[in-house]
Amino acid sequence: MTHKIIFDTDPGIDDAMALLFIAASPALDLLAITTIFGNSDIDTTTRNALYLKQRFNLAAPVFKGTDKPLTRPRNPSPTFVHGENGLGDVELTGLIPAQPEAKPAHQAIIDLARKHPGEVTLVAVGPLTNLALALKADPQVATLLKGVVIMGGAFGIAGKPGNVTPVAEANIWNDPEAADLVFTAPWNLTAVSLDVTTQVVMSPAYMDALEASAGPAGVFLNAISKPYAAFYGGRDGIEGCCVHDAAAVAFVIDPALFETRRGSVRVVTEGIALGQTCLKAEGELFGPSAWDDQPIQAVTVAVNEAGLLALYAQTMKVGA
Amino acid sequence: MTHKIIFDTDPGIDDAMALLFIAASPALDLLAITTIFGNSDIDTTTRNALYLKQRFNLAAPVFKGTDKPLTRPRNPSPTFVHGENGLGDVELTGLIPAQPEAKPAHQAIIDLARKHPGEVTLVAVGPLTNLALALKADPQVATLLKGVVIMGGAFGIAGKPGNVTPVAEANIWNDPEAADLVFTAPWNLTAVSLDVTTQVVMSPAYMDALEASAGPAGVFLNAISKPYAAFYGGRDGIEGCCVHDAAAVAFVIDPALFETRRGSVRVVTEGIALGQTCLKAEGELFGPSAWDDQPIQAVTVAVNEAGLLALYAQTMKVGA
Repeated sequence: MTHKIIFDTDPGIDDAMALLFIAASPALDLLAITTIFGNSDIDTTTRNALYLKQRFNLAAPVFKGTDKPLTRPRNPSPTFVHGENGLGDVELTGLIPAQPEAKPAHQAIIDLARKHPGEVTLVAVGPLTNLALALKADPQVATLLKGVVIMGGAFGIAGKPGNVTPVAEANIWNDPEAADLVFTAPWNLTAVSLDVTTQVVMSPAYMDALEASAGPAGVFLNAISKPYAAFYGGRDGIEGCCVHDAAAVAFVIDPALFETRRGSVRVVTEGIALGQTCLKAEGELFGPSAWDDQPIQAVTVAVNEAGLLALYAQTMKVGA
Repeated sequence: MTHKIIFDTDPGIDDAMALLFIAASPALDLLAITTIFGNSDIDTTTRNALYLKQRFNLAAPVFKGTDKPLTRPRNPSPTFVHGENGLGDVELTGLIPAQPEAKPAHQAIIDLARKHPGEVTLVAVGPLTNLALALKADPQVATLLKGVVIMGGAFGIAGKPGNVTPVAEANIWNDPEAADLVFTAPWNLTAVSLDVTTQVVMSPAYMDALEASAGPAGVFLNAISKPYAAFYGGRDGIEGCCVHDAAAVAFVIDPALFETRRGSVRVVTEGIALGQTCLKAEGELFGPSAWDDQPIQAVTVAVNEAGLLALYAQTMKVGA
C-alpha cells in the first residue's frame, strides 16, 4: 500500500532532498506540491518547486502558497543557509518558465483531503501558514486527512538548542501563530523536530556516494549540498548536511526509525522565547495551564541515524 | 578553609533539610538566614526559620525578607507540597515566640557582602526577590559576593519538564522579573536546577537511616519528609523526596559532584512559558537575541546522585 502525500515545502536545499526522496520512494504517491515562503520568498520557493518538477519529471502539480505569516511581517530569508536562489546558488540550468496551478495551496490541501478522505498524509517542512489557512477555511480538513507530519520545532530533548534562537526552530519561529493553530488542531500530527534532525548528518563522503549511485538526482543533490554543508561546518561540530526535511519523509515511510513522545504542544507567541515549541507530555501533572484539553500529538525524541541514512540511499539508488 | 554562607530560604521542607545540612557541615560558616515567601507566605517561612534556629541551636541571625514579587501579585502557597505550616504540618513543639532582626533581608545581604568582600557565598533556594532588591539597592553587591548558588530553573536538559508548568520551575515562576535580574547580574552564579535535583532522591529507607544516625535533626527531618514523599509518590515514578535545596548546598561543599554548562540565561516574563529559564550555551551562534552581551553563568546538567546522598548522610551523622 502506498501513502498518498501532499508535500508542503519551501525549497530550500533540504527540501529538494526530501522532494526527490518522495519521488523515488515506491511507498509514496505524491499528489501535490504546495509551496510556502521560508527558506526564501514565495516566488523563489515556487520557482524552485517548478524547476525541480521539470528537471526530475515529477507528475505532481505545484500549488503556490501564501507569501507571509498569519499576523506578522515575514522574517528575512536565510540566504546564508540556502543561497540567494534558495538552492545553494547552483545554476538552475535549462529552466523553462512555468506557472503554478491557479488554485492557492491551502485550497488544494482542502480539496485533496475531501477527494481522498482518510487517505492523505500532509508532509509539511516549512512555516505552517498554509496548514493554518486550510484549517481556518475548512476546519474539517483536520479529520479528513490521514495525518500530518511536520519538520519543525525544538523541544530541548537532550539539551539541543533551537537554530534561530536558543529555544526556537526556524519553521515555527517564521509563523508562531500558525504553528500554535496547527499543533492544537484535532488531527494526527507528528513533529519531527530539530532534536532528532540534527542527529542525522549526510557527510561529504555520503553525498559523493549518492552522486555515484543515484543518477541525475544524486549529482544535483551533491552539488546543492556543498554550500549547505559549508554553513554547518564549524557549527556544533557537524560535518556535512543535517537531514532536516527528508527526516519527516522517512517518518512516513518507516516510523520505526524514530522514538516518539506523546503530549500536547503549545507555541510561544511573544517575548524572548518566541517560536519555542513547549511539550506537556501525556500524564504529567501540573496546575491549570495553556496545555489543558488540547489534542495529544507526537514528538520525535530519538532516531536511528544509520537506518535513516540507509533508507535514503537505498531509495535514491537508480534501478533500486 | 570554610565558606561564609548567607542562606536565603523559604522553609519549606527541603529548605529545612538544606539548612540543617549547612549547620552540620564543617566546611560552611553560616553568617545569616534571610527569609523569602515561596513555599509559604513570608510570616510563615520566617516563623519556620526562627523555629529551626531555636530547635537546633543555630547561631546565625534571621532577617525577614519581602512578602511579594517585584512587580506581580504573589502566587498561592503550595500547601499541597509543604503543608499549611510549611513544614509538612508536623507539630512545631516547644515553639518560643521570637522576632527576626530589624534589618530587612536584602539590606543584610548587602551589609554582609560589604563586611566580608569577596568572601561570602549567597545560597538562595526560594524566589529570587531579595537578591533582586539587593542588586537594585546596591549594584556593587554583585562584585562584592564571592558567588551565588541558587536552586532554581528548569533547562529541559534530558527532556525533564518544569514543576509548576511544563517549562517552569516554581522558584523562578514565583518571581520571573527578579530571576531575570539575578541571572543577568555580573556575579559568579550557578543554578542548581530541576534538571539535576529531580535526579537525587532520598528514599524512605534513606530517611529511616538518617533518623537512626543523625540525632534529633534526623528524627525531625524524617518526620517532615513523609508528606513531602507522599506528594512525590505517584509522580514521575519518584519514590521519596527530591533533594532540591540541599543540592545547592552540596554544590558549595563539593562542586565536583556536578557537571555544569556555561552560558547566558534569560527568564521568560510573559505568555505561556512564563518563568522558563532559557540557556544560550557559550559559543552557540544565533542572530541578535536577548542573550547577547549578558554575563556567562553556570547551569548544572548532571549530578553524582550516590555521591551527593553519601555527602549528606556523612555530614549529618552525629559525631562525624
